[in-house]
Amino acid sequence: MTNIKDIAFHCGVAISTVSRVLNNHPDVSEDTREKVLRAVNELHYIPNTSARNLVRTSSDTIALLVKGVNNPFFAKLIKVIDREITRQGYTLELHHMDTSEDELRIGAQLTNERKLIGILFLGGRFNYSPEEIALINVPSVFCTYTNTFGTLDAGAYSSVAIDDKQAARDAVDTLVSLGHKKIAILTDNDCDNSISELRFQGYKDALGKHGIPFDPNLVACTGTFSDMHAIYQATSSLIARDSSFTAIFAIADLMAIAAIKSLSDHGKKVPEDCSVVAIDGLDLSEYTLPTLTTLVQPAEDMGLACAKTIIELIEHPGRNRQFTFETLLRPGGSVRRIDK
Amino acid sequence: MTNIKDIAFHCGVAISTVSRVLNNHPDVSEDTREKVLRAVNELHYIPNTSARNLVRTSSDTIALLVKGVNNPFFAKLIKVIDREITRQGYTLELHHMDTSEDELRIGAQLTNERKLIGILFLGGRFNYSPEEIALINVPSVFCTYTNTFGTLDAGAYSSVAIDDKQAARDAVDTLVSLGHKKIAILTDNDCDNSISELRFQGYKDALGKHGIPFDPNLVACTGTFSDMHAIYQATSSLIARDSSFTAIFAIADLMAIAAIKSLSDHGKKVPEDCSVVAIDGLDLSEYTLPTLTTLVQPAEDMGLACAKTIIELIEHPGRNRQFTFETLLRPGGSVRRIDK
Repeated sequence: MTNIKDIAFHCGVAISTVSRVLNNHPDVSEDTREKVLRAVNELHYIPNTSARNLVRTSSDTIALLVKGVNNPFFAKLIKVIDREITRQGYTLELHHMDTSEDELRIGAQLTNERKLIGILFLGGRFNYSPEEIALINVPSVFCTYTNTFGTLDAGAYSSVAIDDKQAARDAVDTLVSLGHKKIAILTDNDCDNSISELRFQGYKDALGKHGIPFDPNLVACTGTFSDMHAIYQATSSLIARDSSFTAIFAIADLMAIAAIKSLSDHGKKVPEDCSVVAIDGLDLSEYTLPTLTTLVQPAEDMGLACAKTIIELIEHPGRNRQFTFETLLRPGGSVRRIDK
Repeated sequence: MTNIKDIAFHCGVAISTVSRVLNNHPDVSEDTREKVLRAVNELHYIPNTSARNLVRTSSDTIALLVKGVNNPFFAKLIKVIDREITRQGYTLELHHMDTSEDELRIGAQLTNERKLIGILFLGGRFNYSPEEIALINVPSVFCTYTNTFGTLDAGAYSSVAIDDKQAARDAVDTLVSLGHKKIAILTDNDCDNSISELRFQGYKDALGKHGIPFDPNLVACTGTFSDMHAIYQATSSLIARDSSFTAIFAIADLMAIAAIKSLSDHGKKVPEDCSVVAIDGLDLSEYTLPTLTTLVQPAEDMGLACAKTIIELIEHPGRNRQFTFETLLRPGGSVRRIDK
């Protein structure tokens, strides 16, 4: 098995030179570049991306700090971010934290201890203060969230997110356009200054816009995005409390899947007896029965924006930007028109 | 927000001393320990585990090298491993690699570049040679696989896995006991010296045991564990080729979910027209329609064994062990008895 040392030895150059060639750095002579690439070819060296990163020094390292390990939407984003960061010649280091921990505090300690050059926060609070963000002394990007509830100046942070309120409004609009008026919501939380609260607000906004009174009885808080059993139970409690709803807006695909199961176990078929719309657009939920009707977050585009923004910030400090992506309805089999 | 430096300053001790107290190291005087713990309490410092790790040096770092990012069973294992490694005062560093890359090669470069004290391979080949494993010069544990097709001495490696062949036999036995004889298999691959091949062999073994002839027409290779579209297509091709089967054994839960969708789109209801059994036991598949009948891998026990084994090997080099866990049938709604 040929490794990078064999290539360096074969060509009579330093390992770091081979590394520079493999990473397309400009500071290598054309002769050397050719020699190395020929050796790579002849010695059947497969320059794989992960291994390639490992020859770099830690000062090329960007951390991706993931809040909550069970989010399948994050899994897709991580893949895209990893690919792009690596392609651009940087190293990505992945760290996980519990949803109960504070990402800024963990991030601050990471940057101090790991000699990071940048940090991507995947998931986080929407309410940072300037004092809090000052803890992070390297460029950073908030991925999948922004500073809606916070007090940061636009020039002080970068973010890549969807418009969570708008996505929720679109979900409710979809249901209303099909004749639904008794629309329940399944949300993690309704007042946590986080993604759940925004989607909850979007739900209330949309009801208001359509002249539908908000009914607290139709709000089911799960306290989780990923614990299927807890989501199932929250839906069952909702049904026990008030089963008059004809539709559910679930703020995430996994929630919708557990909700559909609970509805089914209570004799309510989807979409015959209850319509369900969610936000996420996981590949998985395209293959559940029924196919989930959901607002798709553009994972590929968002992941690319996260990677490109952090690299831009590293190479040109201070150029902060906030990106907002639109979600797109993916029609499925979990909704139906009802008589008004 | 109180941090570890505040605690150290408050107590007049070094940060490393606070760290030792928080990590329950023995080399701290009882007085100091009490003083630090009192300060932690009074200053409302929440010693969170991730942050706590970061004050350690890199020579406490165990890497978890994950092959393939989209495996939900791995997500659960990672959580358990992370919790236990952290609880025992070590640092876990997570690395991802593509399924197309070679874990030993990536692992070897990781250990050289990162000053690791141990490495957990999450997913890998079952056919290492002594020369290959010699690349890894720190203790290691193969997690979710072992050396079935390889040439390693039992004293030369540690592993935590299920008996994949046995689990596959159990799945087929379950179907046969319900009267099924035309049993198709949905597998990633049938000859890759990996988990798929073992489960495929178990399937063939079980058919043979029951005197059911093996029919290559009933083998659907997906080439993937997680690409739902590819799995859906492979099932559709199987149905087009020979739809006489009354049951499918899918070697993983996600595969079963995509297969059930394909069956449904071809007018075959599960379990009325086709029974489906899988291996994994994801939380998710307990909440799909129908609930998946599946052989559960004990993720909690397996994750604990992975963490404990690597720590044991670090503290007592050479004590290699191989653990084999049993799977347990989780009854669901995806199978039914048919007339013989």
